[in-house]
Amino acid sequence: MSLTTVGSVAFDAIETPFGKTDKIIGGAGTYISIASSFYQKNQNLISVVGEDFPQHMLDTLKNRSINLDGLQIKKGEKSFFWSGKYHNDMNTRDTLITELNVLEHFDPIVPDSYQNTEYLMLGNLSPSVQETVINRLNNRPKLIAMDTMNFWMDIALNDLKSCLKKVDLLIINDEEARQLSGVSSLSRASKIIRSFGPEYLIIKKGEHGALLFHEENMFCAPGLPLEEVFDPTGAGDTFAGGFMGYVSKTDDISFENLKRAVIAGSALASFCVEKFGTERLLEINSEQLEDRIQEFVKLAGFQMNVSLI
Amino acid sequence: MSLTTVGSVAFDAIETPFGKTDKIIGGAGTYISIASSFYQKNQNLISVVGEDFPQHMLDTLKNRSINLDGLQIKKGEKSFFWSGKYHNDMNTRDTLITELNVLEHFDPIVPDSYQNTEYLMLGNLSPSVQETVINRLNNRPKLIAMDTMNFWMDIALNDLKSCLKKVDLLIINDEEARQLSGVSSLSRASKIIRSFGPEYLIIKKGEHGALLFHEENMFCAPGLPLEEVFDPTGAGDTFAGGFMGYVSKTDDISFENLKRAVIAGSALASFCVEKFGTERLLEINSEQLEDRIQEFVKLAGFQMNVSLI
Repeated sequence: MSLTTVGSVAFDAIETPFGKTDKIIGGAGTYISIASSFYQKNQNLISVVGEDFPQHMLDTLKNRSINLDGLQIKKGEKSFFWSGKYHNDMNTRDTLITELNVLEHFDPIVPDSYQNTEYLMLGNLSPSVQETVINRLNNRPKLIAMDTMNFWMDIALNDLKSCLKKVDLLIINDEEARQLSGVSSLSRASKIIRSFGPEYLIIKKGEHGALLFHEENMFCAPGLPLEEVFDPTGAGDTFAGGFMGYVSKTDDISFENLKRAVIAGSALASFCVEKFGTERLLEINSEQLEDRIQEFVKLAGFQMNVSLI
Repeated sequence: MSLTTVGSVAFDAIETPFGKTDKIIGGAGTYISIASSFYQKNQNLISVVGEDFPQHMLDTLKNRSINLDGLQIKKGEKSFFWSGKYHNDMNTRDTLITELNVLEHFDPIVPDSYQNTEYLMLGNLSPSVQETVINRLNNRPKLIAMDTMNFWMDIALNDLKSCLKKVDLLIINDEEARQLSGVSSLSRASKIIRSFGPEYLIIKKGEHGALLFHEENMFCAPGLPLEEVFDPTGAGDTFAGGFMGYVSKTDDISFENLKRAVIAGSALASFCVEKFGTERLLEINSEQLEDRIQEFVKLAGFQMNVSLI
């Protein structure tokens, strides 16, 4: 089974209380596909970069079995660039620079080799671009997942709602869920948002873990208490990538398996924040990931078998 | 095995976005002992009220097998009174009125019938009063648990640290853990706080559940997503009471059993917020509590048995 991801491949410059970077490699498409690659060896990326994008990074993605037939390289243009600064609490950040560059007129190409993909992950992008990708697939994938952000709720809510009607799973954070639903109870928000289209909903809560909703089922994944969060950039995308890598590899969308995928995504995200950018994701191996997953198992497990009352 | 609780038995007047109450029964000692009573039928309460406190409420406590030999009724004096108003997000509140009344010169009495108690719960009170109770016990209990709040960190930090040296378990919320430790990572905070004395630490995270720490062990209990939080007053005390009721009844302080106690406390707290004050706790039965506990089991459970990597 194959997974196709659409998302930005870009430059970031990040400042946190622990230090700052020059331009480093970032973008939702980058984080998602690297995270997916721990599970899924058959994946495709749809994106666009400028002439300034380093070949060695494209080679890094190819070496992780990521098909780049759908990645356009625009001659004479520059890659998307975002710069941000995190506050001391690491939960809030200011955007310092956003240069859309190649993303401004991004017209996503779906190569023939990507047709018949069974799983589709729409990384955070303009909802109209996300919907275009769905429309350009000859066959509807088995599961379409989508990320988005407050920004699109503010400026393109109609496009967002149009796209939501066509997806199976929405992955957003708690603040976004509250904004999109207009209510503060996440339980109520989950019902309202699912009435917009997606049957499945994941609400990411940062250090507090994540919630998965489907029909009457709810799952609460723990957040692993970390000694240090060095750089939160890309953690949400890494979660989504690990989740979709796991689901597409196992080809099983039962609620029980989606829970496992949430844990796989959470484990990868917990690595992501340990260093700047994609650095930590690119250095860990499968054994370290497996150990981290076991930490989640230990963290959340309990046996409540004795009734006392 | 018996459980002794010290804590306020008092009047509250509460305003939330859903309505407001006249003077109703509240106080940490009230919530803790009612919650404990679902598990522990052998418990003692140390507290003080004024002449104005209604006999029917004392009867309610007695009917739940709560020994009131250590509850002083001060002739000609008034009970402690607190009034507060919750903001729309229900996470923050303003204190409108605090009348210490009988609490101002509270000198806790430990009756002979309470000596040899195996479990002690120190509800939120002045740390010097909490320590006095410990000092007045002839034999050290098997487990001493303690609650406190920011207020005491601000005005009585030395007394608080003195008491912390004598307790086994501290139960506080995330904001208090950050203030007490001076660091924002809860993982690091847990180590710093345990270096002050308590071997065990519970950090309550409201809607996000709770964390339990002991030595190298961590447990993350889920927060049950609720449709409506009607009144958060007493939820933390209810959690502590459910926890200590469970632990003292099972008389087992293994980490595995403390996890179960955290779930029992969380389930009771999730009822507490559904109505004003103690109303909901006083109307639920054991079967409803058992069902709610099963919701927690379902919410957090997953089987991660297949390695894919």
